[in-house]
Amino acid sequence: MEFKWPVRVYIEDTDAGGIVYYVNYLKYMERARTEFLRHLGADHAEMIRQGAMFVIHSADIKYQEPAYLDDELEVTVVIEKIKRTYVCFQQQIFCSGRMLTEASIKGVCVIKESMKPCSIPPNIVSALQAYKGDS
Amino acid sequence: MEFKWPVRVYIEDTDAGGIVYYVNYLKYMERARTEFLRHLGADHAEMIRQGAMFVIHSADIKYQEPAYLDDELEVTVVIEKIKRTYVCFQQQIFCSGRMLTEASIKGVCVIKESMKPCSIPPNIVSALQAYKGDS
Amino acid sequence: MEFKWPVRVYIEDTDAGGIVYYVNYLKYMERARTEFLRHLGADHAEMIRQGAMFVIHSADIKYQEPAYLDDELEVTVVIEKIKRTYVCFQQQIFCSGRMLTEASIKGVCVIKESMKPCSIPPNIVSALQAYKGDS
Amino acid sequence: MEFKWPVRVYIEDTDAGGIVYYVNYLKYMERARTEFLRHLGADHAEMIRQGAMFVIHSADIKYQEPAYLDDELEVTVVIEKIKRTYVCFQQQIFCSGRMLTEASIKGVCVIKESMKPCSIPPNIVSALQAYKGDS
Repeated sequence: MEFKWPVRVYIEDTDAGGIVYYVNYLKYMERARTEFLRHLGADHAEMIRQGAMFVIHSADIKYQEPAYLDDELEVTVVIEKIKRTYVCFQQQIFCSGRMLTEASIKGVCVIKESMKPCSIPPNIVSALQAYKGDS
Repeated sequence: MEFKWPVRVYIEDTDAGGIVYYVNYLKYMERARTEFLRHLGADHAEMIRQGAMFVIHSADIKYQEPAYLDDELEVTVVIEKIKRTYVCFQQQIFCSGRMLTEASIKGVCVIKESMKPCSIPPNIVSALQAYKGDS
Repeated sequence: MEFKWPVRVYIEDTDAGGIVYYVNYLKYMERARTEFLRHLGADHAEMIRQGAMFVIHSADIKYQEPAYLDDELEVTVVIEKIKRTYVCFQQQIFCSGRMLTEASIKGVCVIKESMKPCSIPPNIVSALQAYKGDS
Repeated sequence: MEFKWPVRVYIEDTDAGGIVYYVNYLKYMERARTEFLRHLGADHAEMIRQGAMFVIHSADIKYQEPAYLDDELEVTVVIEKIKRTYVCFQQQIFCSGRMLTEASIKGVCVIKESMKPCSIPPNIVSALQAYKGDS
């Protein structure tokens, strides 16, 4: 199943090339993942308060077309893989039906203090698996 | 006395107007204040680890001319006032001798947990006063 | 009359102090002004393509309480003054009814090429005046 | 041959996890590439004024360890491949000798108006080849 989140391009997101600064698409994708987790009932802020957090292990992003000031984008989230300590997401950004950018993102659950990988909290794993199972 | 810190404008700092995104001058000014505190031997990261930190109480910034991609800027820091819990700074940003932007910034020392104002650590107060006394 | 725009706090907006990085409130306020202009039918992206744009002349911002990860904020926009080449806005940011931050922002219309002040396009002036008149 | 550029971590670069916000490493890498091009005598701002620019085609980034507030980082740039319209870079970020992050970045030269790929300006190609030849 695919989760979708709308993002509007503001002047803060653009650069002197007149387009969205390419680094910012990763922010858009993270907003969508955050809203996706919220939608599943998983609370990342609560996780952080309890000493664990998701950090990004790797990101592989491909740019096809730029986005411009005022564009209304749609950011998708698909779960590709769920393991004990990490999750792989596939994400795309669309504008008016054209795919602008896509990325594979791997997020790992770590203990905040030590930054060592740890098991993803069971309630979050279940929510992710239930969602993925719906695919 | 006036502390000066050089800043180079990168594409990340610009916007679709072709100039530095106006919000980013406040980042440049903070970099200069941070380097100023470091120069004085005051360690903000250490302060944060010990549970206190400087937060900004207010900022009053005026823009005269824009900065452009690749510009080499000079950011100044002058201490205007030192009180038990706060410091007021006067800062300016120059490019090739022209003043682009100036701001009054008030930073307050707070307890990280409660966000309540607290006394600035004595070693930082002394360093600031010694510097200001040099004026 | 008061325009309101919701903003969600994401991890990208926070800093190592655990709160929203204070510079980012100015981005939130700009998003609200942009949506306000859009609501009035004024098109800033179109203005920029035609060679004029709003730039910020000055911002005076006061911070009262911090915002945290995941907070749902409400950003308000009130027009304080409209002149031939500039507009003054009064803006506030609320979280659960508490006012966190407020600012006076002065935006000037300039010719993109020369960065010299110019008259605000008549359709935008009328829209602003009509809105303000409703107050 | 390897180009190196120092970067200091400021509060603006961190997030509520207490570490550098992962997206910002890409900004650090771009600063290093920009300084590398400047070092070679290639002027990207001048290219943009003449209607061409480098845009990022893809980025594949792996995170190993986080950077923290005040860290002094070293960002490296190695040219992996030079073609008519694009360049591939290999970049790493170090802190005190430990490698924190590495990425493969592909930059394409495009016509600003149309965003279509075009030949990299000859003077930039020569400079890149001369540098790579030195390896």
